[in-house]
Amino acid sequence: MTHFLQPFGAKLPVIQASMAGIQGSALAMAVCHAGGLGSLPASMMTLETLEQELQKLAAIHKPYNVNFFCHTAPTYNENIERAWRQILSPYYQKYGITPHIDPNSTKQPGFTESIELLEHYNPPIVSFHFGLPKQDLVNRLKERGTTVIASATTVEEALYLEESGVDAVIAQGLEAGGHRGHFLSDDLSKQMGTLALLPQIVATVSCPVIAAGGISTPADISAAMNLGASAVQIGTAYLLCPETHTSALYRAALKSTSARHTAITNLFSGRPARSIVNKLIKELGAIRQDVPAFPLARQALADLRALAEQKGDTSFSAFWCGQNTQGCQEVSATVLTQRLCQGL
Amino acid sequence: MTHFLQPFGAKLPVIQASMAGIQGSALAMAVCHAGGLGSLPASMMTLETLEQELQKLAAIHKPYNVNFFCHTAPTYNENIERAWRQILSPYYQKYGITPHIDPNSTKQPGFTESIELLEHYNPPIVSFHFGLPKQDLVNRLKERGTTVIASATTVEEALYLEESGVDAVIAQGLEAGGHRGHFLSDDLSKQMGTLALLPQIVATVSCPVIAAGGISTPADISAAMNLGASAVQIGTAYLLCPETHTSALYRAALKSTSARHTAITNLFSGRPARSIVNKLIKELGAIRQDVPAFPLARQALADLRALAEQKGDTSFSAFWCGQNTQGCQEVSATVLTQRLCQGL
Repeated sequence: MTHFLQPFGAKLPVIQASMAGIQGSALAMAVCHAGGLGSLPASMMTLETLEQELQKLAAIHKPYNVNFFCHTAPTYNENIERAWRQILSPYYQKYGITPHIDPNSTKQPGFTESIELLEHYNPPIVSFHFGLPKQDLVNRLKERGTTVIASATTVEEALYLEESGVDAVIAQGLEAGGHRGHFLSDDLSKQMGTLALLPQIVATVSCPVIAAGGISTPADISAAMNLGASAVQIGTAYLLCPETHTSALYRAALKSTSARHTAITNLFSGRPARSIVNKLIKELGAIRQDVPAFPLARQALADLRALAEQKGDTSFSAFWCGQNTQGCQEVSATVLTQRLCQGL
Repeated sequence: MTHFLQPFGAKLPVIQASMAGIQGSALAMAVCHAGGLGSLPASMMTLETLEQELQKLAAIHKPYNVNFFCHTAPTYNENIERAWRQILSPYYQKYGITPHIDPNSTKQPGFTESIELLEHYNPPIVSFHFGLPKQDLVNRLKERGTTVIASATTVEEALYLEESGVDAVIAQGLEAGGHRGHFLSDDLSKQMGTLALLPQIVATVSCPVIAAGGISTPADISAAMNLGASAVQIGTAYLLCPETHTSALYRAALKSTSARHTAITNLFSGRPARSIVNKLIKELGAIRQDVPAFPLARQALADLRALAEQKGDTSFSAFWCGQNTQGCQEVSATVLTQRLCQGL
């Protein structure tokens, strides 16, 4: 089977989806060791941590991917924050919490600040979610020989990315766990299941297409490749691997029938992302217009979540999860990657 | 390739999805002639029409399917109707319409009234949407040798159907056009893309599983069969066939990029169904709690839709459509069915 990752030296057509907050270089390296493409989620790391992680990844001399979120840094809005905390106040009261708000706590290095570091390491692949950084930064990466890929949730986004010069498009079907990668429209009804989105993007763009969303078994990978994918991206299946930071409560949810009910929600981060449904989603609704912007929304729930989880209560926990947990196995990501590709 | 329909004498693993209001026996027969399984949508027909259509279908001596909606007949509620027409009143005013309301106009024969007719014809297969009729009616059909199949939108619904004795479950992924088949919960977030739903239902039930939603090419059919489907159900791809009643405006929408944006909406019928997005959906929102019950909601828009369509305006038109129109071809359904199965 020929695939997109072969020229990089990865023998398997599997990209491990970047999962910010859940993994670092350990998961990426384990996937690389199996012959897949491990990914490092750069977006929630300080530049210092990012450098440490890049050092580790680069040291194994396997192809890898570094992923960035491309949201515009939000402006802290006191009124929106206050209104949102008012909505959450019954929970604060119940749990005896005075929410600690620090407008600066969710500040993250932007891509502009990271690019010099990247240029030092020249990662083989850099992937973007929520669109692309400024065109000159994309060009700078490409001039240094880095392959640039990015997520599309619609045919229109795939066309936009191709016109912006990406080397491959990730077709992110609605089944995918975690954050939706949309950037041209926040109308979720425009987004499609993988089985519909993938072949339509394949038919529309001329660059390679990577399938994402609901893929968790060798049969799924075969299906995606037969529908024109040049590789697949898999996240959820890796969530039980020992190389992740998936908590005990999160693991228990993944292994139970709770994982059958996920929803796309913006309550936890300020941007729509697929999570296992919990009390907060049921009571407030999955998508609301009054949630602070990404990633500021994280703050309002942080203390609540921590306190509740100490009591084994997942009412406020963002447990990112795709619609198909069949691939989740409690084995090393190296073994899992090999199993995912068995018989291909 | 062995498949579910072979024992019935259909050589291809394709069930033409029943599309009430868009087709009668002509489409079903054209599919049957190709070796697929044609379906007759019984739910919007009078018993007299149903009998005429059954006569035609039975006369070609090929296996066929008769489909029924299993909703509970709604009670006309004057207050709900009045409030809903109030919401629609700006449109009525703009188009100079005094909406004609007849509480009895959407009355349809229930399955109880149809079963004697069915017993006379003994159709090889009967399929149900929105759940099942009363257990004794299911049993009566099965005792006469009819194979009973029904739609599931979740793993839970598939289990329920299997326990109720259906012979096969249709796994209806979110990509599918037209009415969602759910019956245990109306929480749409519980529903999944085909790529996630199909293998999970296959892994859970022991009866054959038919894949539906987003399937429109030979590669899609192969993918579904490789994921464990025993056959596939295809609707949208048939919408341009000359044997359908698809209107000129509907056809034009299907052939344009409008078809890239569909949404699950209850505005048109009172139950969630996937339609091409139009002005009404954009202005009122796709899902509302104040819409009259299925199928009463059809009435409030009927005159508006008719008048607007005369002017080439699709603002109020329910153009059912799945998320993948790649398979739509303006060829006879016989040729299309053969093409869909080319190389399988």
